[in-house]
Amino acid sequence: MITLATDFGSPYPAAMKGVVRRRTDAEIVDVAHDLPRGDPRAAAFWLRFVLPEFPPAVHCAVVDPGVGTDRAAIAVRAGGHVLVAPDNGLALPPARALAAAVDAGIDVFRIDPGDPASATFHGRDVFAPAAAAIRDTRGTAGDDGWAADPPTAAELAALPSLTPTDSYVDRRLPEPDVADGEPDVVTGEVLVVDGFGNAITNVPEAYLHGRDRVLVNGEPIPVGATFASVPAGDRLVTAGSHGYVECDVNDGRGDDAFGLEPGDPVRFEG
Amino acid sequence: MITLATDFGSPYPAAMKGVVRRRTDAEIVDVAHDLPRGDPRAAAFWLRFVLPEFPPAVHCAVVDPGVGTDRAAIAVRAGGHVLVAPDNGLALPPARALAAAVDAGIDVFRIDPGDPASATFHGRDVFAPAAAAIRDTRGTAGDDGWAADPPTAAELAALPSLTPTDSYVDRRLPEPDVADGEPDVVTGEVLVVDGFGNAITNVPEAYLHGRDRVLVNGEPIPVGATFASVPAGDRLVTAGSHGYVECDVNDGRGDDAFGLEPGDPVRFEG
Amino acid sequence: MITLATDFGSPYPAAMKGVVRRRTDAEIVDVAHDLPRGDPRAAAFWLRFVLPEFPPAVHCAVVDPGVGTDRAAIAVRAGGHVLVAPDNGLALPPARALAAAVDAGIDVFRIDPGDPASATFHGRDVFAPAAAAIRDTRGTAGDDGWAADPPTAAELAALPSLTPTDSYVDRRLPEPDVADGEPDVVTGEVLVVDGFGNAITNVPEAYLHGRDRVLVNGEPIPVGATFASVPAGDRLVTAGSHGYVECDVNDGRGDDAFGLEPGDPVRFEG
Repeated sequence: MITLATDFGSPYPAAMKGVVRRRTDAEIVDVAHDLPRGDPRAAAFWLRFVLPEFPPAVHCAVVDPGVGTDRAAIAVRAGGHVLVAPDNGLALPPARALAAAVDAGIDVFRIDPGDPASATFHGRDVFAPAAAAIRDTRGTAGDDGWAADPPTAAELAALPSLTPTDSYVDRRLPEPDVADGEPDVVTGEVLVVDGFGNAITNVPEAYLHGRDRVLVNGEPIPVGATFASVPAGDRLVTAGSHGYVECDVNDGRGDDAFGLEPGDPVRFEG
Repeated sequence: MITLATDFGSPYPAAMKGVVRRRTDAEIVDVAHDLPRGDPRAAAFWLRFVLPEFPPAVHCAVVDPGVGTDRAAIAVRAGGHVLVAPDNGLALPPARALAAAVDAGIDVFRIDPGDPASATFHGRDVFAPAAAAIRDTRGTAGDDGWAADPPTAAELAALPSLTPTDSYVDRRLPEPDVADGEPDVVTGEVLVVDGFGNAITNVPEAYLHGRDRVLVNGEPIPVGATFASVPAGDRLVTAGSHGYVECDVNDGRGDDAFGLEPGDPVRFEG
Repeated sequence: MITLATDFGSPYPAAMKGVVRRRTDAEIVDVAHDLPRGDPRAAAFWLRFVLPEFPPAVHCAVVDPGVGTDRAAIAVRAGGHVLVAPDNGLALPPARALAAAVDAGIDVFRIDPGDPASATFHGRDVFAPAAAAIRDTRGTAGDDGWAADPPTAAELAALPSLTPTDSYVDRRLPEPDVADGEPDVVTGEVLVVDGFGNAITNVPEAYLHGRDRVLVNGEPIPVGATFASVPAGDRLVTAGSHGYVECDVNDGRGDDAFGLEPGDPVRFEG
């Protein structure tokens, strides 16, 4: 299986699918093609959320504001999965999560980009061919043995296009600040806003345990287990399915109601 | 085959795909992930339109404004298909259509939700696993025998997570009113507006037979077999591909031109 | 493999997927369902860009403002591929590109539409069944022999629903004007604007070779190999991955910044 995740919209990902299908019969699964545009941090968040649901596979993830510059292309082996991505750090948070799930480390490889046909569409010219080549370590058939027997680091290193490296952009998602001596005060940050308008922060949901109301940037907001715990149109704070504190509105948009967008600080007191 | 239909946008459905793929190699087909948000009635309409085109399969349909409340999760067996959905009635209109197509009835099962990992993402935690478990009655291979030999009600009842029930939300799409003694006057309702802006009502297309003009909320509008039967920009009334009367504009948006949105009444006289 | 490309948005393409799957287990690949609405020329451009990346396959492409009129439905055999489309010319530019890639010509067939169930949804009633019937010349299994042994023109002509024809809409994408005696002046046209806002013209990229600045409709604009060659927010002209000159903005929308939309003329001097 090769999953595709990009910020390309349409129809560019179809060119990537064609490139993959010319090289392999591996199943192609669309993860998303509307990741926040040009925002590798948001891509890192979403892929860290989504990819651990998958069995071991190859994941081709392209959010690449530096396309055509001298930024490298990398492949990251993590817990039986391999992520193929530009070296802007987007792959590292999901890779570390995938590796941690099986108590393993990661292996990073630099991808030889060859001679791309374009300077602006490396999804087609570099990343999709690299993903197909990696998948082909387990053959080109639609039904692979990948999940049961994913390639070792040595097998990947044996591919002509891959070279092990210790030099890569090691992005980490930001950690919230806990005020000294004030465990009830946490200043986090909005990482992403989802399509529902939920403003998802980097504050672990554990902060909400035992609280039924918190101050969000100074305003008292109820803590609810479900959207329906408050009337339609009302604000709430909840533990999102990603394990982080969200600022939401039942049947409405939390980002608008809280005045929050990605990157904004959020101070919780409770 | 497992089809997925949600109002989740992106990238949440990808987590559902991962969950399915960890459990089964069944083909995954996206029906839609932009169903009208939080509107089980619209989902019922669209699935009643789309699912009868498919061979027997498992359909996982999640439009779920009550997620995290005590609403149940159900599976509905209908004509070789099984629909997995929240118990808000969205599954019943498509299920009755699928069953009627083979002169059969429906069987409804309550799904044991287990202990969902989240209170807000039962698509991942409840519905996708249930769909995979139901599909697995015919094995986990990509090429199943489902369509030729779908499971019986007794086989589904034997699944540990399913319990037959007679208690469920039995949604019906609204029927139009035909004025007493005035067969030429029908008051219907806009059920959905599609992406083209066509305002699709609940009035069966038979109403248009033999008419070349009708009054729509008092205004005379031509009846056309095709969009191109009127000049670009002009309004028309036509028989939609769903079998219902639509209020459309050729090369434009009917909802805007007629001032109609879902739930609005529409009076036809002709 | 059967690829699907439409301007239908959602959920109409799902009905086409169901129709295909009832008839064949061929892989279904979504190319795009948000092609510019009612614009066969834009569809021709995008499919000429995308389809050559695919191995030989059946491509079902429906952008069909004339649905329900007496426009014909056609199938075009081109280099092992077969395109199924309304006879509005959208299939011809990609078909000629696919045929040229293998130094071959094209064969065009008229599709007998049968008796469509609707006058407004021939994607479901005419084109998807035709694509499935053509694919079935190589069997209904998921794993076909199509790419290795695509059908001959004679095999296609033997299908009851296909009749060879020389009469079809032979759309050509417009060619730019090169001013007499002024090889440095080219007047092209914006063919499409992509989701990034890049205004893609019909001027071949070769025009940019050796230039580091051009006048675009009289304004001096730097020529860059990559978006990142100019500061964020700045305009540039670049060679797009389609091989044509684009008017772009780094981390912004070229269409807005240049005031360009599809069909607009663009004069390059340099």
